[in-house]
Amino acid sequence: MPKCVVLLSGGLDSATVLAMAKEQGFDPCALTVTYGQRHAVELDAARATAASQGVTDHRFVQVELNKLGGSALTDNIEVPKDRDESTMAGEIPVTYVPARNTVMLSIALGFAEVVGANDIFVGVNAVDYSGYPDCRPEYIEAFQTMARLATKSGVEGAEITIHAPLVHLTKTDIVREGLRLGVDYSKTHSCYDPDASGQPCGRCDSCQIRNRAFAELRMTDPALKA
Amino acid sequence: MPKCVVLLSGGLDSATVLAMAKEQGFDPCALTVTYGQRHAVELDAARATAASQGVTDHRFVQVELNKLGGSALTDNIEVPKDRDESTMAGEIPVTYVPARNTVMLSIALGFAEVVGANDIFVGVNAVDYSGYPDCRPEYIEAFQTMARLATKSGVEGAEITIHAPLVHLTKTDIVREGLRLGVDYSKTHSCYDPDASGQPCGRCDSCQIRNRAFAELRMTDPALKA
Repeated sequence: MPKCVVLLSGGLDSATVLAMAKEQGFDPCALTVTYGQRHAVELDAARATAASQGVTDHRFVQVELNKLGGSALTDNIEVPKDRDESTMAGEIPVTYVPARNTVMLSIALGFAEVVGANDIFVGVNAVDYSGYPDCRPEYIEAFQTMARLATKSGVEGAEITIHAPLVHLTKTDIVREGLRLGVDYSKTHSCYDPDASGQPCGRCDSCQIRNRAFAELRMTDPALKA
Repeated sequence: MPKCVVLLSGGLDSATVLAMAKEQGFDPCALTVTYGQRHAVELDAARATAASQGVTDHRFVQVELNKLGGSALTDNIEVPKDRDESTMAGEIPVTYVPARNTVMLSIALGFAEVVGANDIFVGVNAVDYSGYPDCRPEYIEAFQTMARLATKSGVEGAEITIHAPLVHLTKTDIVREGLRLGVDYSKTHSCYDPDASGQPCGRCDSCQIRNRAFAELRMTDPALKA
C-alpha cells in the first residue's frame, strides 16, 4: 500500500479524514502539528485517534506560532462564546491562527518527502468555516502547485496531491461518513476552550458546530459519554 | 515606512537581503526559524546581524523538523566535506532539509499577517544551490500565488510579494552588494559543521562557497578575523 501523510489534530474532521485515507487504500502516517495551543487534551485525542485506527507512524512536531501572536488559540485572548451562526459565517474570528494551514501543510510536505509519500490528506472544510481563507478549494489547489515545485520528488515528476475530502461537506455529512467508516468519535476533541479536566465548554464556535451535527443525526456526542 | 518580514538565518545571504530590504525603503521585522539544527552559533549570528542593522522586532520561532528526520542538518548524519563543485551542482546533498524553505516562508507569512506586512524577503539563491528545488524562481512564484489565497489580507486584495533578490546572483556578487550596503559580515556564520568553539570547518559546501567568494574579492573573510 502506498504511504500517505494525514494531518491529525485530535478533532472530529481529521479523524474522519484518516478513515477516508485508509478506505482509499493508503497506509497512513499521521502528523500532529502543535502550535503553542494551550490544551494537552487535543494531543491526547490525536494520540488516541491514531491508535484506535491502527496508525503505526505518528509524529508530533511543535512549531512556536505563539511567538508570533495574533490568535485567541495561541495568545491570552478570550475565545468568543455563544455567537450565532450568521456572525460565525460573516467574519474571520479571533480563533484564526495566521497561516496555520499553510504551516501545517508545509511540515506535512517535509514529512511526505522523508517517508516517500506523494499524498497528503487534510481536513479543511469550506462550509462551516467560510470565513477562513485557507480552507477554500482554490487555496488547496495553489498549495499543491507550489508543493510540486518545492520538492525533490515533485521535480522528478511525482504527482504530489493534497487531498481535502471534506472541503464541500457539512459537519453532519462528515460525521455520517465517519460513522459509516467506523470512526470512534469518543476519542476526538473539538473545543477551543475546555475546562481544567478537559471537558468541552459547549459554547465556542467549534462546540456549537459539533453539537448541531450530532443533534441533526439524533445522537449524543460519544465524546460526552466517555 | 511599510513593514516587511525578512527571514534571517545568521548566514551571509540573509544578512545581505536584510540590508537590501532596508535600501528599498522597508522597516524590516526579522524572523529566525530554528529547525532543530545543532548549532547555537547560527542563532547568535542572527541576533548580532539584526542588532547591527538596527532591527527592533526580531522573533525566533522553533519548528521541530528534526522529528521528521531526513537531513544531515537535523539528524546525526555526517556533513560531507571537501566535495568538488561539479559534485555540489549535480545532486541534492544530505544537508537538504525537506521542505525547509516552504516551512520557513509559511511561518514568515503568518508573521507578516500579524504585523500587517505584505512583503517577505528571503535569501534563496539558484546559482550556488542549483540542486535545491525550493531555491528556484518558479517555486518562489508559486509560493507567492498560494500566499495571496492563504491570508485574510491577500483575500482583501493585498499584493503579498515574496522578494528573492539573490536568486540569480553568484555568491561573489552577493558579497559585493552587501559590502556596498555596509553589511558587517563579521557577524555572520555559514558553516554546516562548526567546532565546539563555533569556528567554521572550512571544508563543507557552505564554507567552500563562502571562502571562494571572499577569495575572488581578494579579501579575508571578516568572520575569520573576528
